[in-house]
Amino acid sequence: MLKQYTFKELSTSALTALVTRNADDTHAIQDVVQQIIADVRQDGDTALLSFASKFDKVDLEKLYLDKADIEELAMTITRDQQRALEIAFQNIHKFHSSQMRRERTVETMPGVKCWREPRPIERVGLYIPGGSAVLPSTLLMLGVPARISGCKEIVVCSPPQQSGKINGFVAYCLQLLKIDRIYLAGGAQAIAAMAFGTDTIPKVDKIFGPGNQFVTKAKSVVQSMTNVSIDMPAGPSEVLVIADETANPAYVAADLLAQAEHGPDSQAVLVCTSDTILAAVDSKLEEQLQILPRAEIAKMAIANSYAVKVDDLQEAMQFSNQYAPEHLILETDQWESLTRYISNAGSVFLGHLTPESAGDYASGTNHTLPTSGYARSYSGVSVDSFVKKITFQHINAEGLNHIGSTVEILAELEGLHAHKNAVSVRK
Amino acid sequence: MLKQYTFKELSTSALTALVTRNADDTHAIQDVVQQIIADVRQDGDTALLSFASKFDKVDLEKLYLDKADIEELAMTITRDQQRALEIAFQNIHKFHSSQMRRERTVETMPGVKCWREPRPIERVGLYIPGGSAVLPSTLLMLGVPARISGCKEIVVCSPPQQSGKINGFVAYCLQLLKIDRIYLAGGAQAIAAMAFGTDTIPKVDKIFGPGNQFVTKAKSVVQSMTNVSIDMPAGPSEVLVIADETANPAYVAADLLAQAEHGPDSQAVLVCTSDTILAAVDSKLEEQLQILPRAEIAKMAIANSYAVKVDDLQEAMQFSNQYAPEHLILETDQWESLTRYISNAGSVFLGHLTPESAGDYASGTNHTLPTSGYARSYSGVSVDSFVKKITFQHINAEGLNHIGSTVEILAELEGLHAHKNAVSVRK
Repeated sequence: MLKQYTFKELSTSALTALVTRNADDTHAIQDVVQQIIADVRQDGDTALLSFASKFDKVDLEKLYLDKADIEELAMTITRDQQRALEIAFQNIHKFHSSQMRRERTVETMPGVKCWREPRPIERVGLYIPGGSAVLPSTLLMLGVPARISGCKEIVVCSPPQQSGKINGFVAYCLQLLKIDRIYLAGGAQAIAAMAFGTDTIPKVDKIFGPGNQFVTKAKSVVQSMTNVSIDMPAGPSEVLVIADETANPAYVAADLLAQAEHGPDSQAVLVCTSDTILAAVDSKLEEQLQILPRAEIAKMAIANSYAVKVDDLQEAMQFSNQYAPEHLILETDQWESLTRYISNAGSVFLGHLTPESAGDYASGTNHTLPTSGYARSYSGVSVDSFVKKITFQHINAEGLNHIGSTVEILAELEGLHAHKNAVSVRK
Repeated sequence: MLKQYTFKELSTSALTALVTRNADDTHAIQDVVQQIIADVRQDGDTALLSFASKFDKVDLEKLYLDKADIEELAMTITRDQQRALEIAFQNIHKFHSSQMRRERTVETMPGVKCWREPRPIERVGLYIPGGSAVLPSTLLMLGVPARISGCKEIVVCSPPQQSGKINGFVAYCLQLLKIDRIYLAGGAQAIAAMAFGTDTIPKVDKIFGPGNQFVTKAKSVVQSMTNVSIDMPAGPSEVLVIADETANPAYVAADLLAQAEHGPDSQAVLVCTSDTILAAVDSKLEEQLQILPRAEIAKMAIANSYAVKVDDLQEAMQFSNQYAPEHLILETDQWESLTRYISNAGSVFLGHLTPESAGDYASGTNHTLPTSGYARSYSGVSVDSFVKKITFQHINAEGLNHIGSTVEILAELEGLHAHKNAVSVRK
């Protein structure tokens, strides 16, 4: 089923083409998004209510649900479901808590002390997609590090369902996160509201979260219009599986399909050292697709995907690093010796028993990850994404004595005499 | 000299206006930058040579200087200047080295192990401004963390001087950093070259560095055109000084002027609890301006600046946090008890003997910092800016047993059955 290429036979330009995900940046989307942003800036809440009616097919009385509403909705899910969300919450909390660490003070010269201290970003906006797939896991992945970081104001936006509510899973996650309110706004209009503020929805300093093309375009547009920042640019989700002859074809096929079912534009890449395994994976793909509810979507994604035959695992790593996958799965007994060669990836799943879906939900790592090759320069979301690290320095008389003339000489050679004088005047 | 406001008397809108730095985003700049980028993409090196002729007034034979050229230029500076650059290099290196730390593995459930490992961004581009102020310190501030992080390819671009060379200070810093080549390209054309690559200048994954309006606009434009990332958005430099009755007016004035001499659009804000000190600072400003070579520039910046009278240091911190300054100086005996109230700032200078110029050059902290209120959500440049933190996870049979049903339940409730199957198939 998978188109197949051989690594050795790829020209440089063919290789570049293979690892390039098309941005598909149509002006049509840009224009729609610009108009929505302009409307929200001008009409605020009124625009949001009208977009809810237009896009979400619901006439809202108010633009948010409060604590009582959330409590009521959270009770509608089963105890098993609650328990699964709790375990995910706990694991994510445990792993992300380990990312908050005090750094030591460095005395660069006697009397010159420097250090960094984290400070939470005060107001953060979390976008939780709704529509066909409602993703309570995304709320956990963004809400947990926001809570650990100590953000003062956590604004959550999600499109209303036709009932004018949200689903019970998202409501239960809000309770776990001790967030008492959720704003009923979706799409580009939610992003605009968080970037500029309306009477109801507060303006935030940074916007997080995945979404469709309109949401991601809106994030990039507001970032260039006002001083709000965003977690990262986003494109369709993707996985790259490296498999050798020790791989189990049924596991590999299942992992490729888990990626493929996200959307028709998802990409699942198999890099494999063994023709036997390649063929076996193909037949397992056929088999597993039969029983998949989202088979139509997955088939389109598989058509958009491919396999690369390599001679050995070193070649596999070469291809993978050039691709820079959001998710990388190493389905080989040799995973331990391979990790050091990984230079570009969002999150990595090691060995035969670590499916990517574990990381999507509950292993503890974050599932908000760089796509489209951005893993070359971006990290996934972590506690770091919700804090600034402010540098501090303190110099005493001894320190000024040690560092003074250095600063004076450097200021002078850069022609900045007032910089020099700020030292001289203190001597 | 400084315009003066009283904190208590400011309306919410007046306060917002005061802390807002105007973006001044003219379409004229946008259009020029777009055209330069298009030219570089189309004509590559030829375009760069022609821009050097047009903007830098020099006809270059080649677009770079190599090791021998750099050695020759580095010898033209004095031993004292070399020594000052060495001390700056060492202090910056010492502080930034402390930012590289191994993180521990977290076992979120028995058999489920998660951790993060840093990996250098492979190809980074450093832009070093030239023109009126040539800034070797910027090369150190970007080059040192790039080297510590282990970036494979460090591309440095700086506009050529009319001699077709660079100055000896920049050359000496290149030697300290063991960088053997510098590309002679400045302005938006240098940014375009690093974003898209030319025959001579390699394409990079992330672009760092300050610059004029054309450079910063070009960074923001290429970021939206291709998957290159940038260090941060940039605006004019700024300082906010908090002073109480323990402050030395001459020190305060010197710090304000050190900021003001950067450019006419720089801003120096004084937040002060004491009318006596305010008046004394004003007279020291007059006095120090007399002997300043860049007095004309500084005067324009001072006209663009202001003082805010506050009742106490708590009010001062309130204002400062709303302003979110790039540089914050606490000229008060109480600095130690104030630091915990700082929520938004780039870099902080504590006490009476810590001038901002120390941090600009040699204390060890980075001087590439968020301006224009971006300190609300951005950190300054650090080793973190040159690495990705990749998450890893490994699950064994015991772990899959512990986490399996949680993942299955969550995948099912999100309607993602292939995600569920990736676990089920492994059980």
